[in-house]
Amino acid sequence: MTVPATSVETRFALAKTVAREAGALAFHYFQQRETLVIETKRDLQDVVSIADREVEQLIRQRFAEAFPTDGVLGEEYGLEAGTSGFTWVVDPIDGTSPFVNGMPNWCISIALLKEDRPVVGVIYAPCHDELYAAADGLGATLNDRKLTLDPSRNIRNAVTGIGANNHVTPAFVAGIVERLLEAGGNFIRNGSGALMLAYVAAGRLVGYYEPYMHAWDCLAGYCLVNEAGGWSHAFPARGESLVKGAPVLAAAPGAIEDLRRIAGI
Amino acid sequence: MTVPATSVETRFALAKTVAREAGALAFHYFQQRETLVIETKRDLQDVVSIADREVEQLIRQRFAEAFPTDGVLGEEYGLEAGTSGFTWVVDPIDGTSPFVNGMPNWCISIALLKEDRPVVGVIYAPCHDELYAAADGLGATLNDRKLTLDPSRNIRNAVTGIGANNHVTPAFVAGIVERLLEAGGNFIRNGSGALMLAYVAAGRLVGYYEPYMHAWDCLAGYCLVNEAGGWSHAFPARGESLVKGAPVLAAAPGAIEDLRRIAGI
Repeated sequence: MTVPATSVETRFALAKTVAREAGALAFHYFQQRETLVIETKRDLQDVVSIADREVEQLIRQRFAEAFPTDGVLGEEYGLEAGTSGFTWVVDPIDGTSPFVNGMPNWCISIALLKEDRPVVGVIYAPCHDELYAAADGLGATLNDRKLTLDPSRNIRNAVTGIGANNHVTPAFVAGIVERLLEAGGNFIRNGSGALMLAYVAAGRLVGYYEPYMHAWDCLAGYCLVNEAGGWSHAFPARGESLVKGAPVLAAAPGAIEDLRRIAGI
Repeated sequence: MTVPATSVETRFALAKTVAREAGALAFHYFQQRETLVIETKRDLQDVVSIADREVEQLIRQRFAEAFPTDGVLGEEYGLEAGTSGFTWVVDPIDGTSPFVNGMPNWCISIALLKEDRPVVGVIYAPCHDELYAAADGLGATLNDRKLTLDPSRNIRNAVTGIGANNHVTPAFVAGIVERLLEAGGNFIRNGSGALMLAYVAAGRLVGYYEPYMHAWDCLAGYCLVNEAGGWSHAFPARGESLVKGAPVLAAAPGAIEDLRRIAGI
């Protein structure tokens, strides 16, 4: 179907408003986190609480009200297909483990796919009141300040983010760490992959690699990195693969080659 | 020499005031970090700026004014021996790499040694306005709220912090990661060892391991963890070894055994 040119921009504005509203609700739960019941999913390290579910419901409701024919894919409630050609891809709280343990590194991540291409990426970190926002061709911003990556930064003079979960073996994760350090790099892992992707867009990290991530973890970050002048490894966002995982790699220009070698992609 | 019993308490109160004042100065530099000249030390990943130096000078000045016979050991200006039996051990900005890259995970770390025993530990994280404070026998607090570790937490149901630098090989660091994950653990590394030790005291992490750290990185955190009911591997703080590095391990009660095995200490 034909979509009016303004549609992305209208949705972009809504995504920013919704990210802040969702962030405020999540922050409310964060402040009373000691009363939350924590459940586990794939293993004891894969946690979820009512905060994730309530925040996703709020986000779904806002998008359904404004764009009832858009699809929505969320981490907690799965895929509801739409007919408009647009699909929202939402992680209500990325970094649930830091969240439930009282650490500040978590965020709300909202992407918009136009067919299979991420055209909007909005990430909001409530503990730091930082809103990262990008839309196709409009550039990327952090709290309205334009983000542009510095080509002189590489893995040796800057920091790289990494992530992992039990979809890969401990030896595989150890191999990433070893190759990165051997190449003169240094790593952080703050507990939120989406937030570390936003940090790549902001030039705080020179790249982010995680061997297996879902669409809701990475698509907003990918849009941000691309619009800030970086590069991202294509995520298969068409059909069934949208709900499956894939390797995720995003990098500033000076780190692409090294990180592709380290990741083997 | 004989020291009046009140001396630790008076110094504890001063340490908290100085940590906040130093934090405010560091935060001022953090907000204008794009104008700072960044120098490197041991390698390209080991960075320092005028902020580290100015903050350490401020802290030294405050302690010299109040307790002119106390010794001071700081990361940037080394050891100035005293005669009172007390030595301040200071990292003006722990997490300089996050600091210069614009990430919030850095802190001011101030410990007080009575002979070779840490009797005060104060860590202040300006970006989160969190003051962690402990003194021998007085318990540990976060923003005046008492910290007590939960004995049910272990490496499998909670998160462990790790750190490393080029004093050990990439293969050694990879081995830590692999053993921790194999044991069902999960790790973060936020870029500030002192702050991660404070997180152990606050129950946000169940332990922290770094194979080589200096006294200024760990002694305040050790005092915090011990006073919150945790355990720490003794740091050799007597004589020359005070200015050398050593392995650092701190843990909540339920994580001690696993982490000692993983660290091999």
